[in-house]
Amino acid sequence: MAKEITPRAENYSQWYNDIVKKAGLAEHSAVRGCMVIKPYGFAIWEKMQAQLDRMFKETGHMNAYFPLFIPKSFLSKEADHVEGFAKECAVVTHYRLKQSDDGSGVVVDPEARLEEELIVRPTSETIIWNTYRDWITSYRDLPLLINQWANVVRWEMRTRLFLRTAEFLWQEGHTAHATSEEAMEEALRMQDVYAQFAEEHMAMPVVKGSKTANERFAGAVETFAIEALMQDGKALQAGTSHFLGQNFAKAFDVKYVSESNQEEYVWATSWGVSTRLMGGLIMTHSDDDGLVLPPKLAPIQVVIVPIPKPDEELNEIAARLKEELQALNVSVKIDLDDKKRPGFKFAEYEMMGVPVRIGIGKRDLAQGVVEIARRDTKEKMSVKVEECVTVVRQLLDEIQNNLMQKALDFRSTHTTQVDDWDDFVNVLEEKGGFISAHWDGTTETELKIKELTKATIRCIPQDQQAEQGKCVLSGKPSSGRVLFARAY
Amino acid sequence: MAKEITPRAENYSQWYNDIVKKAGLAEHSAVRGCMVIKPYGFAIWEKMQAQLDRMFKETGHMNAYFPLFIPKSFLSKEADHVEGFAKECAVVTHYRLKQSDDGSGVVVDPEARLEEELIVRPTSETIIWNTYRDWITSYRDLPLLINQWANVVRWEMRTRLFLRTAEFLWQEGHTAHATSEEAMEEALRMQDVYAQFAEEHMAMPVVKGSKTANERFAGAVETFAIEALMQDGKALQAGTSHFLGQNFAKAFDVKYVSESNQEEYVWATSWGVSTRLMGGLIMTHSDDDGLVLPPKLAPIQVVIVPIPKPDEELNEIAARLKEELQALNVSVKIDLDDKKRPGFKFAEYEMMGVPVRIGIGKRDLAQGVVEIARRDTKEKMSVKVEECVTVVRQLLDEIQNNLMQKALDFRSTHTTQVDDWDDFVNVLEEKGGFISAHWDGTTETELKIKELTKATIRCIPQDQQAEQGKCVLSGKPSSGRVLFARAY
Repeated sequence: MAKEITPRAENYSQWYNDIVKKAGLAEHSAVRGCMVIKPYGFAIWEKMQAQLDRMFKETGHMNAYFPLFIPKSFLSKEADHVEGFAKECAVVTHYRLKQSDDGSGVVVDPEARLEEELIVRPTSETIIWNTYRDWITSYRDLPLLINQWANVVRWEMRTRLFLRTAEFLWQEGHTAHATSEEAMEEALRMQDVYAQFAEEHMAMPVVKGSKTANERFAGAVETFAIEALMQDGKALQAGTSHFLGQNFAKAFDVKYVSESNQEEYVWATSWGVSTRLMGGLIMTHSDDDGLVLPPKLAPIQVVIVPIPKPDEELNEIAARLKEELQALNVSVKIDLDDKKRPGFKFAEYEMMGVPVRIGIGKRDLAQGVVEIARRDTKEKMSVKVEECVTVVRQLLDEIQNNLMQKALDFRSTHTTQVDDWDDFVNVLEEKGGFISAHWDGTTETELKIKELTKATIRCIPQDQQAEQGKCVLSGKPSSGRVLFARAY
Repeated sequence: MAKEITPRAENYSQWYNDIVKKAGLAEHSAVRGCMVIKPYGFAIWEKMQAQLDRMFKETGHMNAYFPLFIPKSFLSKEADHVEGFAKECAVVTHYRLKQSDDGSGVVVDPEARLEEELIVRPTSETIIWNTYRDWITSYRDLPLLINQWANVVRWEMRTRLFLRTAEFLWQEGHTAHATSEEAMEEALRMQDVYAQFAEEHMAMPVVKGSKTANERFAGAVETFAIEALMQDGKALQAGTSHFLGQNFAKAFDVKYVSESNQEEYVWATSWGVSTRLMGGLIMTHSDDDGLVLPPKLAPIQVVIVPIPKPDEELNEIAARLKEELQALNVSVKIDLDDKKRPGFKFAEYEMMGVPVRIGIGKRDLAQGVVEIARRDTKEKMSVKVEECVTVVRQLLDEIQNNLMQKALDFRSTHTTQVDDWDDFVNVLEEKGGFISAHWDGTTETELKIKELTKATIRCIPQDQQAEQGKCVLSGKPSSGRVLFARAY
């Protein structure tokens, strides 16, 4: 099986597609641009969802559900928003089909044309703020802290599984606040939640920063992002949190009466992560043998394989180990298939990224030991049966930490401080990764750099050091470095 | 607050709308036929989802995700299916908007017309079976046991919150099997899962039965249903599970090679429940003071109200009780709002259907007691502080059982055996509920009864007794009774 994966060094993009396919994560559907998320891929997404949902609730948010459709006119109400989102989208124009006259199938019934077209939501600020108008009247109704798990559609011409698809799954938080300060705090809090999730659960280090005006969400005053670095040296925007100011409140006339009895427009944030995170997860850790998963997000954390094949004695030990591991909240699968050989199974679970494999072999057992193999480093060790559970439990934490450390190391060796344009171009071509460089703060320079190199400003890091310098392209003065990279 | 609810006896339909609105469960949106599920309503749905999902996984199913859109031509591939579903649906014809020439807003770009229209899924058999063709080649790939949580759209002209909306949330299971027997077993197993969920978690008794040919799912060979009875004597179809035979396998050419090396068409089932269950939950238990929730599905199981208002001593006791109850997996809210009076709060939590209220009063505490009030019977009792947690834990189980018993009693007093047409009409008019009567087995009679009385055959009960009789309308011979009712 593993042999069928294209090595990263040969063709990174094909390697990614191979992993997504061979590990059974997702595939293209009959509908252009829409993917099918397969059961194993969905099980990983469910673990991500469950953890994020927990973190949203711990920070005071509740879930709700708003309509799939947005009246076309809503999109025009916020000027920047319409520019950003009312372009490539799925438009519902009719509400009925009928049998064709020749009986060969169904056709759109021309009489069932909608008075106003409906857009399949590309994001829900407009329909939600139209709803909030009725929900908010007083400062007592604030803050309103709501999240929605939903599917959204943005018509994309060039799609890649998980990274860019016409339909994708995501969550979108939409909060309303009495003051600018509170809304800003919320936007930053959720960026923190995303960063914590990415690092502690996905073992994917991220840089926290603000987007430049040019890269901002359409309708936002400020966009905060978390940016990760993939193994091919390209950056991935993994989540964004927007301070929307009063833009949507003004567009949808959402006001509240303050404690001092003043009528004021409400302040807003929105924030989202999507199935795109799956792409980031895959590209951060996986290798030429298949998927590598951090234990915290692995649907199967441990697989037990009886060797050479299942029998009563081996199965009994496997069942006992499984029970003991499950008592420690470890998810375990015992592979009782007697038609496949152990070597085949090993390759299969490596492909699936199962973090730990326990091989229970006849001969090993005679010595009172089992073989434990870790997916991340491929190391194997012989462990006494009675110590197996303790060792595995520790090993899962160790793997989680090791993946994070490895990704951190990769990022630090692939973040280069550059002060000169030729170096900028060379580093980008030869090494890739993040380039920390001075920028003069103008959109003109930013776009020029993008045009020349395809690199964009990923973010203005929140931990940016004040440092006088000259813009790497224009030579104009700059007061701090920003992070450039080519990106997904 | 409570006063604002229309009594059931006065106008049942308005009572339902009042509860949905005042308890903060859902509301109509700006998009015709689409609802907004509000945070409190969604929290109940989440509890239903979580339990159903657990039961699906325990019966071997995995979740996956398939596209929102279905190519128009797919709907025509199964003859009955297209009849049932290709009528009222949302049709996507374009994929782009552009600025209108006069700059007043956005218009559909006529150049961005799709070659083939896309239908927003009304149900996913077609797109899923088109996918299964590639997933199934051998008997080793079977059974394939997949579920999807999704939104679906069926263009409805007359909508009611939760009960009938254009967009709704649901789960749809789609399974593939090697034999007819296995598929039939699966369809019946999932009907059992639904019945168990309805009775043990929703405290809503259901009758298990088969649908008549006329009421069958479009494309099914056999439809199994669970039918519940609402307090106004109307029935509610709460869930269906379909044995699809080889209909979809043939329509989408899904074959497998059997153990004996024969190529065979695959056997299928599909099964679903939706946010409609919320309507059933509301109508089964609620009263003229608001929502009544079975403890197992209540987002807040216990609310603690300090009386007359929060203070240090009361809050400390409340916090301790909360902690002890949470340790027993009871969800607790302490109401620390000092702007609302206790009486107002009581009415509010009654409206929300919180099963148990603990009032911690200054004067009671001097006697070492707190007041416990149950939502279902409105009974109050004085309980020693140190016994409070034990009493509440038991009370929650008692309330769950009491709600089930009450609903069972209601159903048995509202199920009437009828042998004569005049009685049939009278019972339906005067009393409502299920009517158990003989039917001659023809669609003609079934439709005639519907035309005359609006009553439909809810199901042929699975526990039907063999009994010779005469059809209540036609007088023709019948070998067993079926259940009639007017229905949602």
